[in-house]
Amino acid sequence: MSPFPHPLPPLPAATLTLGDLRGVRASGVAAGIKASGRPDVALLVADSRLACAGIFTKNAFAAAPVRVCREHLSKSGGHFRAIVVNSGNANACTGAAGEADARRMAALVAEKLGCPVEEVLVFSTGVIGHRLPMEKIEKGINLAFDALAAGPDAGRAFLTAIQTTDAYPKEAGDAIDGVRVAGVCKGAGMIHPDMATMLAFVGTDAPLSPAELAWLAPAVAKKSFNAVHVDSHPSTNDSFFLFSTGNEAVANGGAPSANIAAVQRALVAVSNRLAWLIARDGEGATKVTTVTVRGATSDDAARAIADRVAASGLVRTALFGNDPNWGRFVSQVGNAREVVDAQALVCTLQGVEVFRSGEPRPFDAGSLSKAMAVEDVALDLSLRDGDGEAMLMTSDLSYRYVEVNAEYTT
Amino acid sequence: MSPFPHPLPPLPAATLTLGDLRGVRASGVAAGIKASGRPDVALLVADSRLACAGIFTKNAFAAAPVRVCREHLSKSGGHFRAIVVNSGNANACTGAAGEADARRMAALVAEKLGCPVEEVLVFSTGVIGHRLPMEKIEKGINLAFDALAAGPDAGRAFLTAIQTTDAYPKEAGDAIDGVRVAGVCKGAGMIHPDMATMLAFVGTDAPLSPAELAWLAPAVAKKSFNAVHVDSHPSTNDSFFLFSTGNEAVANGGAPSANIAAVQRALVAVSNRLAWLIARDGEGATKVTTVTVRGATSDDAARAIADRVAASGLVRTALFGNDPNWGRFVSQVGNAREVVDAQALVCTLQGVEVFRSGEPRPFDAGSLSKAMAVEDVALDLSLRDGDGEAMLMTSDLSYRYVEVNAEYTT
Repeated sequence: MSPFPHPLPPLPAATLTLGDLRGVRASGVAAGIKASGRPDVALLVADSRLACAGIFTKNAFAAAPVRVCREHLSKSGGHFRAIVVNSGNANACTGAAGEADARRMAALVAEKLGCPVEEVLVFSTGVIGHRLPMEKIEKGINLAFDALAAGPDAGRAFLTAIQTTDAYPKEAGDAIDGVRVAGVCKGAGMIHPDMATMLAFVGTDAPLSPAELAWLAPAVAKKSFNAVHVDSHPSTNDSFFLFSTGNEAVANGGAPSANIAAVQRALVAVSNRLAWLIARDGEGATKVTTVTVRGATSDDAARAIADRVAASGLVRTALFGNDPNWGRFVSQVGNAREVVDAQALVCTLQGVEVFRSGEPRPFDAGSLSKAMAVEDVALDLSLRDGDGEAMLMTSDLSYRYVEVNAEYTT
Repeated sequence: MSPFPHPLPPLPAATLTLGDLRGVRASGVAAGIKASGRPDVALLVADSRLACAGIFTKNAFAAAPVRVCREHLSKSGGHFRAIVVNSGNANACTGAAGEADARRMAALVAEKLGCPVEEVLVFSTGVIGHRLPMEKIEKGINLAFDALAAGPDAGRAFLTAIQTTDAYPKEAGDAIDGVRVAGVCKGAGMIHPDMATMLAFVGTDAPLSPAELAWLAPAVAKKSFNAVHVDSHPSTNDSFFLFSTGNEAVANGGAPSANIAAVQRALVAVSNRLAWLIARDGEGATKVTTVTVRGATSDDAARAIADRVAASGLVRTALFGNDPNWGRFVSQVGNAREVVDAQALVCTLQGVEVFRSGEPRPFDAGSLSKAMAVEDVALDLSLRDGDGEAMLMTSDLSYRYVEVNAEYTT
């Protein structure tokens, strides 16, 4: 037992799951890749080919499945029939042999479906630097095909099989203004490069073309998965996959009937919830702090400032300790080269203004500390340099983080 | 008592102290600024005005004493008669009133010496956002003048009075190839923005002009104080002050007689030792890891890559846990935009090659873990992009770091 308990938030069930989307079936099975015997192969199959888009890690050591996905999406013009995922092994830093394994994994699924191999997308998450156990993968794929089903249980089976160090399953889904969206993800706020990765799969019944999805994916990620501060340490396998179960006519280039603004709002709402769940599951995290920067010279500048604040161990430990230590927040803004007029900074913590015009503002430290002892903390940093803004969700830095990470592989 | 003991390294005494340099006297006294009653006003006075140079924080909220020092150095053309330091209060984020206090502190010393006020340099370190207790400062300055003396005890009294959260005093000094250099500093590897600051004072008896010192200061800092990774969180008060007790003729522009290369080597050796002591005193640190990047496109690129690796909580906890977890080191190099050919990366830990050509190398994890359980760990990252190189000293991330920082002001 750890001396540092890691209390978990209550988990509301999603109203809508991946398995509830139109024309898709899903499954998750145990193939023995994980030593624990837990489910480790997940499969999602569409009745017909669907439109999709993907965003992948920018890490120079991008894992074999990431490289294969990029190639397949390019060849298929943003279409797919199936997604196959294994957990327990990241197939990263495995050289040419690892890439052949990833291709073989996709090919096994394509053979079953009788579809072009580029219509199968492949994802891996787990330990880095070890070859995939291909016999187990093949066995798992066969089992997963046998288990395919529609409905909530199938969606949750898929979700269970993609998890690694997650403390709880992460799902979100709802019909928002008539737009049905469902998604699952895995990953912890401070991401293990070993048990690598954030993987997120989000689908909507709204009819969208590949081009629309390719435009929506980064816009949605900006307010969700890319707004999770991952300890300046993105993994080799990070992937966000977005798809539409809308009719084939649209997937093949016909005119979409959806209200794109409403679709975007619904996708952002669901994806943001998934990303919050990742930040909340930061190793040892006790809360999620949303850092908002407004009034920077540009959105990129705002993001750089938010990143710098969220990256500081001093900031993160203050958040863990419920310490309204404005000096730590403010001095990190002062360190950001992107700030033009630092004297204009206003720093507001949980709605309480603590710093303005280069000087601290009077506040009651005791009651502000109490206000910080919650699951959601808001840190607002306002500048007067321009219209740029950014939002980041970050986990805090606790004893438990050190414990989880100090003794891992050995 | 903390449940996380913080073992300290043995402390070899410096062969040469600030008080041993020619023509300077020093002192350190208790003026009641610190609630603990420990020494908190330090003074160093030169018999005649000397040549000097300073490097200061780039933080936009640079403290009042930093702004005053910059102005004084500019007005005096790189000359000084006295340094006055208080600990226990950083005089940062104190607005116009704080700047007046810093000027007054310098003026009090200048009056005593009958010298121009710009020949007095003023430094503060401690809590942010509180006005200096000027009565105590004035009392401390009077006491410090009474206590001025030459010799090792005086140098150490100065050192004691500049400390804040330091776990041990930090001094270094020696005659290296005939060049006498002595220095003191304060600060911990992960620097408190509250008990703000790294302050470093290094002097040499070698005759140097202000111009030479202004050239040497950044060159020396690059291999010492600027090579300490400070958790991406430089403080509002960071200062490095370098001076020469060489003859006044030189200080006033005459030709120096020193071998500048030998002087630089000696200054680097002493300053590097001081910087190591800061990294080793990182809050809760159990070791210093020297991250060396070679073969980058430029020195700046190498530094950016080293920074990224040293900034990762996953890297720092692996170092704390003696975990030869190459995936964490390598994937951070993969995240650095400055890397051109990531496949050329060779990663060597404590002399053991663990990664080459995109794949792990076989090694004995148990014996490498043992080799990491020491005070000095070497992490070498070799690229083939160019001739750029950089070195960083970083502390590890332990339970004790969280403990020290999670509950500070409240």
